[in-house]
Amino acid sequence: MKVRFGVDVGGTTIKIGLFDTTGELLEKRSIETDISNQGSNIIPDLVKAIQTFDIDLQHVQGIGVGVPGPVKDGLVYQAVNLGWHHYDVAKAIKTDWPYPVKVTVHNDANLAALGELMAGAAQDVKNLVFFTLGTGVGGGIVSDGKIIEGAHGAGGEIGHMRVGNKGFTCACGNIDCLETIASASGIKRLAAHYVQESNLPSRLRQESYYSAKYIFDLAMSGDPIAETIIEDVTDALAQATQILAVVADPDTFVFGGGVSRAGDFLIDKIRKKYQQIAFPTLRNIHFKVARLGNDAGIYGAFKSVYDED
Amino acid sequence: MKVRFGVDVGGTTIKIGLFDTTGELLEKRSIETDISNQGSNIIPDLVKAIQTFDIDLQHVQGIGVGVPGPVKDGLVYQAVNLGWHHYDVAKAIKTDWPYPVKVTVHNDANLAALGELMAGAAQDVKNLVFFTLGTGVGGGIVSDGKIIEGAHGAGGEIGHMRVGNKGFTCACGNIDCLETIASASGIKRLAAHYVQESNLPSRLRQESYYSAKYIFDLAMSGDPIAETIIEDVTDALAQATQILAVVADPDTFVFGGGVSRAGDFLIDKIRKKYQQIAFPTLRNIHFKVARLGNDAGIYGAFKSVYDED
Repeated sequence: MKVRFGVDVGGTTIKIGLFDTTGELLEKRSIETDISNQGSNIIPDLVKAIQTFDIDLQHVQGIGVGVPGPVKDGLVYQAVNLGWHHYDVAKAIKTDWPYPVKVTVHNDANLAALGELMAGAAQDVKNLVFFTLGTGVGGGIVSDGKIIEGAHGAGGEIGHMRVGNKGFTCACGNIDCLETIASASGIKRLAAHYVQESNLPSRLRQESYYSAKYIFDLAMSGDPIAETIIEDVTDALAQATQILAVVADPDTFVFGGGVSRAGDFLIDKIRKKYQQIAFPTLRNIHFKVARLGNDAGIYGAFKSVYDED
Repeated sequence: MKVRFGVDVGGTTIKIGLFDTTGELLEKRSIETDISNQGSNIIPDLVKAIQTFDIDLQHVQGIGVGVPGPVKDGLVYQAVNLGWHHYDVAKAIKTDWPYPVKVTVHNDANLAALGELMAGAAQDVKNLVFFTLGTGVGGGIVSDGKIIEGAHGAGGEIGHMRVGNKGFTCACGNIDCLETIASASGIKRLAAHYVQESNLPSRLRQESYYSAKYIFDLAMSGDPIAETIIEDVTDALAQATQILAVVADPDTFVFGGGVSRAGDFLIDKIRKKYQQIAFPTLRNIHFKVARLGNDAGIYGAFKSVYDED
């Protein structure tokens, strides 16, 4: 039986999915990411791990790989968390692999978008914008079934759309990136901001540490500062979706990442605000919560091999 | 000799370009657009006009058509200026054509983007965002050589990105669309706004009519209101390009349309402001003035036939 692998290389773990050629996930494993020596052990470790699956290596048709950083035509420009810089991952894998094998390499968030389209919240859709609302905000855009990779591998870097109005500085050095508001770290920063700068009453005034999830829970129970924060987060995301609608014209917006665990409470608020400001013919775009969680990347990695056949 | 046609159907004229198969423009003609009877004469008129070119009709390999409105998979959803609504233009042309012929139909601004990439300001580029700054603001995005058409034919409708902050209402019904600032009509509205709302001195206070071009000329000569207007226009365009850079990651931004005749004066200001707010790795994206003027559409229409072979 022919098989394919979908791999998601993260800063902490490498997820490896074994798929049949139809896209059925047969088995899933994780190994730790060894980021020592500029990440030079990562690919050898990965190749070894794949070889421990109970399959005939000659039957491996392809290996799709997702990487946390900009990738252009298979070349990883930079993956800070892995120590990689201008690294040809496909070549490295092929060198270590005993047989000729097809290898495709893409940005991990772009592959997660493709994964949600293949097996998650946006099946049967060809145009999709995917947000990953985690520690930061990442994303991927699929247009007519293809990832928008862009000229420098930065396509779909939607966390750095400048749509905020708080003057917060982003990790990238700019101000008012979407990520400064609509990420877990943004939510915590907003909490600190309102505790300091407003007179609103809040349970948050009695806490020294607050997670994004806790703030969502407080907002649902009517806490004034928490409610204000959620208004800011959903305003920023509505603004971003208004713009993305006329730029990429997706059929569906999909929201993944830790912050999206707030689920329908969050998505309904974004959708309602979106509809008030959306381009008239685009008011009915679908808003969905991601379904594949941390597996989106390996599904997308599988699909990228398939798409580039 | 095999030939192909690139056609740009506008509300006033229909431009028809005769090309050889390499993309050389051999001849160009225009006819008036007859918008009577819901535009039902347009396609018969077009087919007749094409048949008057001095060629053997059997040698026509394809006809590419651009239309002012959203087009999805060749179907024109709506072209208000032509009276068309859910109109299958390709089918209409093929019905009237004496031989089997390939016909492709796309939005006109999307084709203009493709035209600038084929023969204009962005040759040898595969990722491009094109702005047309005319009475309104239109645009087209090309990703990896392909138009982003989107799920509803609204891909690249960048005039309706909400990036303004003046609260101006757009023709689409929303507020703060890019078009309310960075178009000829937006510039005139800004002039009226500052004449009324500011105490700045200006030659504009003595005028009852002012064109966008006149305001640019005044700005270059140091007129305070005109300068303020140009700051607003270039702020909005810098904001739009900052966002489009991380969304579509183009190699080049191209600016066409009447307002872009202000040329380097305008483009240099936008680029400088862009560079101050751009995502760090994307600061060196190229900014160029469109080269093909009103011919961009027919070049793009030619290319669309070629691309879909």
